[in-house]
Amino acid sequence: MNRILLVQCPDAIGLIHTITGFLVKADANILSNHEFVDPLDKVFFMRTEFSGGYDSKSMEKDLLDRLPKSTVLSISGLEPKKVIVMGTKEPHCLGDLLLRSKFHELSIEIVAVVCNHLELQSLVENFGIPFHFISHEGISKEEHESKILQVLSSYSFSHLLLAKYMRILSASFLQKISQKILNIHHSFLPAFVGAKPYKQAYERGVKIIGATAHFVTEDLDEGPILVQDVLPVDHADTPNRLVLFGKDLEKSVFGKAVRLLVEERVIIYKNRTIVFD
Amino acid sequence: MNRILLVQCPDAIGLIHTITGFLVKADANILSNHEFVDPLDKVFFMRTEFSGGYDSKSMEKDLLDRLPKSTVLSISGLEPKKVIVMGTKEPHCLGDLLLRSKFHELSIEIVAVVCNHLELQSLVENFGIPFHFISHEGISKEEHESKILQVLSSYSFSHLLLAKYMRILSASFLQKISQKILNIHHSFLPAFVGAKPYKQAYERGVKIIGATAHFVTEDLDEGPILVQDVLPVDHADTPNRLVLFGKDLEKSVFGKAVRLLVEERVIIYKNRTIVFD
Amino acid sequence: MNRILLVQCPDAIGLIHTITGFLVKADANILSNHEFVDPLDKVFFMRTEFSGGYDSKSMEKDLLDRLPKSTVLSISGLEPKKVIVMGTKEPHCLGDLLLRSKFHELSIEIVAVVCNHLELQSLVENFGIPFHFISHEGISKEEHESKILQVLSSYSFSHLLLAKYMRILSASFLQKISQKILNIHHSFLPAFVGAKPYKQAYERGVKIIGATAHFVTEDLDEGPILVQDVLPVDHADTPNRLVLFGKDLEKSVFGKAVRLLVEERVIIYKNRTIVFD
Amino acid sequence: MNRILLVQCPDAIGLIHTITGFLVKADANILSNHEFVDPLDKVFFMRTEFSGGYDSKSMEKDLLDRLPKSTVLSISGLEPKKVIVMGTKEPHCLGDLLLRSKFHELSIEIVAVVCNHLELQSLVENFGIPFHFISHEGISKEEHESKILQVLSSYSFSHLLLAKYMRILSASFLQKISQKILNIHHSFLPAFVGAKPYKQAYERGVKIIGATAHFVTEDLDEGPILVQDVLPVDHADTPNRLVLFGKDLEKSVFGKAVRLLVEERVIIYKNRTIVFD
Repeated sequence: MNRILLVQCPDAIGLIHTITGFLVKADANILSNHEFVDPLDKVFFMRTEFSGGYDSKSMEKDLLDRLPKSTVLSISGLEPKKVIVMGTKEPHCLGDLLLRSKFHELSIEIVAVVCNHLELQSLVENFGIPFHFISHEGISKEEHESKILQVLSSYSFSHLLLAKYMRILSASFLQKISQKILNIHHSFLPAFVGAKPYKQAYERGVKIIGATAHFVTEDLDEGPILVQDVLPVDHADTPNRLVLFGKDLEKSVFGKAVRLLVEERVIIYKNRTIVFD
Repeated sequence: MNRILLVQCPDAIGLIHTITGFLVKADANILSNHEFVDPLDKVFFMRTEFSGGYDSKSMEKDLLDRLPKSTVLSISGLEPKKVIVMGTKEPHCLGDLLLRSKFHELSIEIVAVVCNHLELQSLVENFGIPFHFISHEGISKEEHESKILQVLSSYSFSHLLLAKYMRILSASFLQKISQKILNIHHSFLPAFVGAKPYKQAYERGVKIIGATAHFVTEDLDEGPILVQDVLPVDHADTPNRLVLFGKDLEKSVFGKAVRLLVEERVIIYKNRTIVFD
Repeated sequence: MNRILLVQCPDAIGLIHTITGFLVKADANILSNHEFVDPLDKVFFMRTEFSGGYDSKSMEKDLLDRLPKSTVLSISGLEPKKVIVMGTKEPHCLGDLLLRSKFHELSIEIVAVVCNHLELQSLVENFGIPFHFISHEGISKEEHESKILQVLSSYSFSHLLLAKYMRILSASFLQKISQKILNIHHSFLPAFVGAKPYKQAYERGVKIIGATAHFVTEDLDEGPILVQDVLPVDHADTPNRLVLFGKDLEKSVFGKAVRLLVEERVIIYKNRTIVFD
Repeated sequence: MNRILLVQCPDAIGLIHTITGFLVKADANILSNHEFVDPLDKVFFMRTEFSGGYDSKSMEKDLLDRLPKSTVLSISGLEPKKVIVMGTKEPHCLGDLLLRSKFHELSIEIVAVVCNHLELQSLVENFGIPFHFISHEGISKEEHESKILQVLSSYSFSHLLLAKYMRILSASFLQKISQKILNIHHSFLPAFVGAKPYKQAYERGVKIIGATAHFVTEDLDEGPILVQDVLPVDHADTPNRLVLFGKDLEKSVFGKAVRLLVEERVIIYKNRTIVFD
């Protein structure tokens, strides 16, 4: 099976020559190769898909030895990624992930779903996936998050997908999660951060609405953006219609973002994403 | 030549019946007809294109008599609108208007161009249009605007088009202009208000950039939005490339907005636009 | 509950006045109203959403009496439409309809699913919907269609949705179905009619692919188009990737088309659709 | 000034290593680098932007010696390309090129314009560019093309841009032009080839119209596609409105295509284009 090499390091003359030379000597066959050099910061990024070579850990170590000290790199296979999905009541993004996963449109295995409401339980269980109901009612945010963490820790997974999880995660929670966390926000960020973006959009009278998939950081709605898309609206579209149309956009944007992620096409750099698509 | 009736009034039962009845009696032939009722505010809007009838002023008066007291209405012909264009140094929106006007792609007659720099003079004069250079240097904003007002007052025109005029107009100036003022802003409002939106967009790492044509009010970048459009960008697009790509978007968005305006397809209501396209 | 009036008749002076006058007298309250006159054929189309009035059959009859002889009109409620979905093996459009229906994003009730393969059976039955497997193998097309017609005739439904049903329906079959039939074609019609459109698209080297929802007529891929959308592709996208990306487009386009249909926003005229959205 | 290396050759292990090694030894600094391997045909394509190195002709020769026999490669600077534009009567694409060229939005120098009508003469001459009127009336196609060839041969230029030149060029003419020829077609190819595509689009009732920039080959409208874009239309848009809206699309698509071309981002392979953007 093909593997993906992702490299990030300070730019220098001869980097591509060094890396491709290493792969040639390792009997690896390069199938595709993309580089990008940040023109302002002089940082080098590379994604290479290859076959052949030897075991990933040893290749990582051997290549690191040949590159500058601050290099970050990884070699990953393309087998389905184990993910946990968190949701609240809205089914469109979660349902879409369940379908795409079941029918192999996305290379993910949903190992569990965690919700703070019961509405989505039967949907999830009909797909044969464990559903964890963890209510936030009557307990502190700290206690609620602690219960979630306990469930998460019982699974092995590589990504946490917030499919319309409508509560803000605390900095303390985020610090305890080493996996990447992807969120779908129902506006064209940075326009309309925070609550009720469709109502905000209606009141501002915009002619286009959007959705944004971004990584979650401690600053609400401020994390690195991975995918955005928009659709035209007009004066006759009430906030309720915007919500309805927006759902299509959200699930399409979230699906694209998860695909980029599990195909190892994304490097996060500062508050931006380098996307090799 | 066909004429356009625009009506705005409180919603009531039988309005369309009343208005179309009036037109039938006036021997007018309705060619197209659009209504919209704001579902929250219960305000009725209508645009009707008709031929026949009698003189516009008398028709306006006679129809007003049949409608609720707070009704606002107008009947306009579709002959080319006289406009004044203001600019600074950037040629793309101005140049596009000059071409569209000269070759009748837009129903406008540019009666004059006013700029605070000299860069665009030869372009404008090659199209046979008066160019007024009014520098802002060495004088106060008040004085500068006063000179502009003096030039504007020497022309008869119905719309003022800010084709990348890069200075903020004062409230005092705006109050003295009775014509509608349309501006092109180089971002997807309300994201990135203010200066250097492409630099802001680059730094936020957005995956889409936009442009917005909006009417000018005293709140900078907060006026009613008429047209917006976007285009996808990626991590490799530097702020300079965003500026370059954005120019295409700006001139296309501005052109569409001016077309809607001169075809009498726009009613401004609160901070929004009702657009019958 | 609100109802929708759709009218099609030869254009004449005073039609809107007549129809709105009828509604006023019927104590109906017009909530929104759109008209269109085909400028070449002089045919008048109208969609009116209203509350109040009296029973639909009587209103239809009374209004018909006031309009030209060849008028076609209907008054329909907005309760969920009963539909039957036909498919083959591909789950994306069917799965999307199942989700949207279950969670009330689309006003449809799927009364049955008919497939000529077994792959989608468990998906459908998990949503509690009858699944009819009617294999085409070893029997003639005539016999196969006859079996399908038998199943269809056992249900009451208003629309037949072909969600990637991959066999061509015969003229004889179509003549026996009085309900509207909507199909999703995996290209931007009229480009790439027929089989394997993504392979055709790849070979032609197009930079955009599309999907088209259209009504089914006896001419394959030639029926009236309801919704189309596209997405950009590039040289690196293999036919397999185009198929994968195309699925997102197909389900989004099909969902939009079904929404327009069940909201009574569509009038078919000749080989075109008048869409009041 | 930076230069661009374009390479096309049969795929082989170590190609990138070889090429980047050559550049390192040549004291060239790679600024950006893109490769693509056609996965079906096993052909390798590469675009490298670099500074430094030595004279282009010698570098081309030295690199060719290190690569497989059938390699095609070129090293070009990014100075403005000399182009000739051909047109008929429509000003929108030509006017847009004149503006972009004059104000350095496109890296082209228009050395001459050739038209078979007089409508655009004053526009072109106001930009200080030679205008050649070569009427096709009263003479054979062969004679007409021969006169055009005579004018073209009096200029040094690298690209021929057909900005709405409405006559079909003969195979014989094309064989005599060694420069690349780019055309703008007013439809989303391969839909609506040939004449009056907007009328065809209206009659087919499509919901989207498009424009296509493509290289010219002997098969009309069948050459390699470089850029396509679309915009939504509806039932109310008459063929005349489609023509009007289409003009915006055509000039935007043509502008993008010319930019890709002069920035040396395009390799033509079979009937497709590899675009490094």
